[in-house]
Amino acid sequence: MKLTILGCYAATPRTLTNPTAQVLEIRNRLFLIDCGEGTQVQLRKNKIKFSKINHIFISHLHGDHLYGLIGTISTFSLLGRTTDLHIYGPKGIKELILLQLKLTESWTTYSLFFHELESKESEVIFEDAKVIVKTIPLKHRVYTNGYLFQEKPAERKLNVEAVQYYNVHVAYYQKIKNGGNVTLDDGTVIENEKLTFDPEPAKSYAFCSDTVYNEEVIPIIANTDVLYHESTFLDSEARLAEKTLHSTAREAATIALKANVKQLILGHYSTRYDGLEPFKKEAEQVFPNVLLADDGLSFDL
Amino acid sequence: MKLTILGCYAATPRTLTNPTAQVLEIRNRLFLIDCGEGTQVQLRKNKIKFSKINHIFISHLHGDHLYGLIGTISTFSLLGRTTDLHIYGPKGIKELILLQLKLTESWTTYSLFFHELESKESEVIFEDAKVIVKTIPLKHRVYTNGYLFQEKPAERKLNVEAVQYYNVHVAYYQKIKNGGNVTLDDGTVIENEKLTFDPEPAKSYAFCSDTVYNEEVIPIIANTDVLYHESTFLDSEARLAEKTLHSTAREAATIALKANVKQLILGHYSTRYDGLEPFKKEAEQVFPNVLLADDGLSFDL
Repeated sequence: MKLTILGCYAATPRTLTNPTAQVLEIRNRLFLIDCGEGTQVQLRKNKIKFSKINHIFISHLHGDHLYGLIGTISTFSLLGRTTDLHIYGPKGIKELILLQLKLTESWTTYSLFFHELESKESEVIFEDAKVIVKTIPLKHRVYTNGYLFQEKPAERKLNVEAVQYYNVHVAYYQKIKNGGNVTLDDGTVIENEKLTFDPEPAKSYAFCSDTVYNEEVIPIIANTDVLYHESTFLDSEARLAEKTLHSTAREAATIALKANVKQLILGHYSTRYDGLEPFKKEAEQVFPNVLLADDGLSFDL
Repeated sequence: MKLTILGCYAATPRTLTNPTAQVLEIRNRLFLIDCGEGTQVQLRKNKIKFSKINHIFISHLHGDHLYGLIGTISTFSLLGRTTDLHIYGPKGIKELILLQLKLTESWTTYSLFFHELESKESEVIFEDAKVIVKTIPLKHRVYTNGYLFQEKPAERKLNVEAVQYYNVHVAYYQKIKNGGNVTLDDGTVIENEKLTFDPEPAKSYAFCSDTVYNEEVIPIIANTDVLYHESTFLDSEARLAEKTLHSTAREAATIALKANVKQLILGHYSTRYDGLEPFKKEAEQVFPNVLLADDGLSFDL
């Protein structure tokens, strides 16, 4: 699992900072999460292949998470894309994109599927053989979801020496990898754990931006490997965070602690602050394992 | 008159090139012309004060001239702007922006005035004491206008020595600057040219992008000081230019020659070419005074 931060600053794109967008690579799938203005250029700068992105998840319809979407969709077309593109986001996103395509008379060269969200409960919105994606309802000034990306448990790994020792026929390999036991011709049952190794554990990633401090997310993201949680402000601006329905670094860390996640990544910083280190220091007072997102950074998770 | 190129490349924003946007400073007014994705960042990079831009002219509703507009409008709001903002562009632009503001629940802190265009004839769309702006109907795949920015003739300059010599009362100064003669108490008429110097000549700037080669623009832009004309392609791709309703460098130069402009600036280059010098060379075979636009370049005109 690899996370690339394309942009992680609040409000407006600036000379050296970009609004929210990130790419999650998980089991060979590439998911684009949020799409602030300039995202397509950030994708290029980070050498991420446009053609590998088939799913885009938009948290909410605020410009700093959205205004790069129409350009990204259009550029995919200009490059002659033919693969389906799926877009997940709040109700209204379809009308927004279709009107722009209509008025600019620029239809896509590929099929565009919209999955509009309006539920206030967490729901599964994507599932295939290897990955499952659920919404994380957040509390912000407009309808907002975070997203929880979970790998499905992988197959058990075949213990090649063991299956050869017991002379197990190749026809049983898939059954064994699925966790099954094997009965030999003489009736002996060989337990699965003698024939396999544990697979790599299934990883998970939770994206929470933008939101006020909200303990309702805790059961949804409990025990997640990596949590990205917005920290627009520091504790000194806690009242402003509450007023604008954003979080402080301390609050992000409190959610990480209570949800028992393994790692916290902070982001969505207000550009009022000069450096990022104070965010890390503040969060570490509550939760030990804190990383700072920054534009262009990649995390191997 | 000063022209700053924020972006001058066709199609999609890339790592090092930006789609069309430019700022014209004329008689202390700042006009933003086209607004491709990333324009607000380019404005910052070029240290152009957001608050001085009160008029935005959009040539046509294609993404590479438009997709930065909603972000620019939103950022003006986030910065607390209160001054009116006027937007000129093809019919549909109002619906496009208002739907985005509505769905993102982000109203502006200032009044937004839309001036939607649909005429196929050149028309005056802006006029104040010092400047006049007219449309230049172009031929492209969608309804498109270029824009002609003209300074109004300035007042004549008072010849201070002369008015003192003739002992002209200060009450007549404005009349003299407006070109009037003065009758002295003894009945002598002093001709205006004895009392004044010629003012700086009124300058003009024509912006033509995007368009196929179209001689109908010639009478509208005749004798203009500076013409920016798109040259998406070189002569070697002339058939592609015709097919996509764009121009070649040679065609841009031919328009410059036939319209008897003083200076030609080329831009809107396809990113298929490695360098820009071939555009200049090709145009100079037809018209001598050619400059190459490039992102971040400023021209004192």
